[in-house]
Amino acid sequence: MIAAYAAKQPKAKLEPFTYDAKINDYDVLISITHCGICHSDVHIVDGDWGDNFFPVVPGHEIVGIVAETGPAVKSVKKGDRVAVGWQCGSCLDCEYCSAGQENLCGKSAATCMGHFGGFADKVTAHERFVFKLPEHLESASTAPLLCGGITVYSPLNRYATSGMTVGIIGIGGLGHMALLFANAMGCKVYAISSSLDKEAEVKKFGAVKLLNAKSPEALKSMNGSFDFLLSTIPASVDFNVYIPLLKKNGVFCQVGAAPGEFMIPATPLVVGQKTVCGSVIGSPGQIKEMIAFAAKHHINPMIEIMPMKDCNIALDRTRKGKARYRMVLEN
Amino acid sequence: MIAAYAAKQPKAKLEPFTYDAKINDYDVLISITHCGICHSDVHIVDGDWGDNFFPVVPGHEIVGIVAETGPAVKSVKKGDRVAVGWQCGSCLDCEYCSAGQENLCGKSAATCMGHFGGFADKVTAHERFVFKLPEHLESASTAPLLCGGITVYSPLNRYATSGMTVGIIGIGGLGHMALLFANAMGCKVYAISSSLDKEAEVKKFGAVKLLNAKSPEALKSMNGSFDFLLSTIPASVDFNVYIPLLKKNGVFCQVGAAPGEFMIPATPLVVGQKTVCGSVIGSPGQIKEMIAFAAKHHINPMIEIMPMKDCNIALDRTRKGKARYRMVLEN
Repeated sequence: MIAAYAAKQPKAKLEPFTYDAKINDYDVLISITHCGICHSDVHIVDGDWGDNFFPVVPGHEIVGIVAETGPAVKSVKKGDRVAVGWQCGSCLDCEYCSAGQENLCGKSAATCMGHFGGFADKVTAHERFVFKLPEHLESASTAPLLCGGITVYSPLNRYATSGMTVGIIGIGGLGHMALLFANAMGCKVYAISSSLDKEAEVKKFGAVKLLNAKSPEALKSMNGSFDFLLSTIPASVDFNVYIPLLKKNGVFCQVGAAPGEFMIPATPLVVGQKTVCGSVIGSPGQIKEMIAFAAKHHINPMIEIMPMKDCNIALDRTRKGKARYRMVLEN
Repeated sequence: MIAAYAAKQPKAKLEPFTYDAKINDYDVLISITHCGICHSDVHIVDGDWGDNFFPVVPGHEIVGIVAETGPAVKSVKKGDRVAVGWQCGSCLDCEYCSAGQENLCGKSAATCMGHFGGFADKVTAHERFVFKLPEHLESASTAPLLCGGITVYSPLNRYATSGMTVGIIGIGGLGHMALLFANAMGCKVYAISSSLDKEAEVKKFGAVKLLNAKSPEALKSMNGSFDFLLSTIPASVDFNVYIPLLKKNGVFCQVGAAPGEFMIPATPLVVGQKTVCGSVIGSPGQIKEMIAFAAKHHINPMIEIMPMKDCNIALDRTRKGKARYRMVLEN
């Protein structure tokens, strides 16, 4: 029996909740030591993404120890220290799964929507989505890499290379990890944020400077400077300001939830041969690559640790944008 | 002395016009045999892009014979059959020029804006932008490749590969060349147009089918089908219809002038990891590659030839969208 914390209905407080998990042939049962809190956990609990999968056990940035494996599991064994992210399964058969792009599978299974997640003592996942951790990666600070980390690592890895000038828009959970990764990739990184009190911290994360997102002059002074802009804010930017920030051939990428429409001036896009795109988490292959990169470059997200029983307090800090910079629950 | 046809002011009829050309160290003087007509020639003559560079000698899809070379020219010699496109010069020194992306140079010189173009018996261009033609490429039908052709070849070459499903939006001068190229690249190509009378012709150009751009049902039936969509129409599409047409990881590219704003639904862009981008002509390196590709794959745009003296009639056919599919003037 698994002891978890669940919201029985949208916006409800998390309460103790137990369930029995079935271990299928390829499933791994993980005894959770740490679980990071992502803003999407707030969306799910608050019912922003629908109400037909309650009760909800949130949590999808999980680190723990393998407790049991299904009979067909080969990649991990009991006692291994492992991690699981947003995705805990997929069809494994479609053109995306076959091409190592399981994150794009139309039948992707989410760890905490329609499946019970990581605010618990244990969780299950298909072995394809369970990743062994190298010894010297610290469990608590690695947890946030599994969703927030891969969400920014994947597009940075795709579009940014050493020597490029990169701007990270929004310095919260995702944004601060993006600064760490982009700096480790050898980029010249700018933080773009309206929270000017974060200036000292963004420099610690590897940014050369914090640009005031609310100052058109500060931004305009950087026109034509950026090879790559990564937006981690859950809203559209003003593309009449941000498209000119890009160099020719430059790329603007949005990650995370962004409702509404992007209104993009067409002529500068064409004449400057620019790109606007989206990116969604990352594939298992990319997650393995990110874990190796994080181990090699000592990527340590800045976290606040709380005991699992305080999950309501921790979730509320994330809801209110108070986490510096990621909440992590500990069993 | 060069004998040309010029518009003295916006919207004026083209009239005979002579000028003396200076042959600088790296310049090539070309005796023009053919000049294609691009819709941008209409924009320039009509003053849509400003009025401070009149008189205008339009024309930037030029094929001819080298008549004279500046003392430093090494890449071509008198008597060579050559071609020139939109660009006749650049700074040759900036980060774009140094990287073989001269088309993105901030000091790019246009063949027929601030310089006298191809509606003439001769034209000059810097040797970097003069391309030797292989023997078996026919002069008249090669001329349109130099602007319209490279404008579609460059993004197709960048984003489309053999086996992909590709949609070409708008079947005019650019669109019909895009069908020819994409088909030769081994793509499964669809034409997307509201001109249903073009169905038989688009199949000759290599399309498997013409999709009615005015039928939401016809388009919706192809949702999730396209790896790459190339829009050649001078306006925005309805992105609520076109973004769903793309597969996950799919790319939508706009070429040519498109005023206004693209209104792009953000969530499908992010969740489907899709891309919207622009592309502008091509570099000299890409033009050389396109010429070799056209020669190898027998790319022959469908053209209507008229004598140079009928340039007003020919320009008007392009202005009114009557060309099937590209007007070419002949000396």
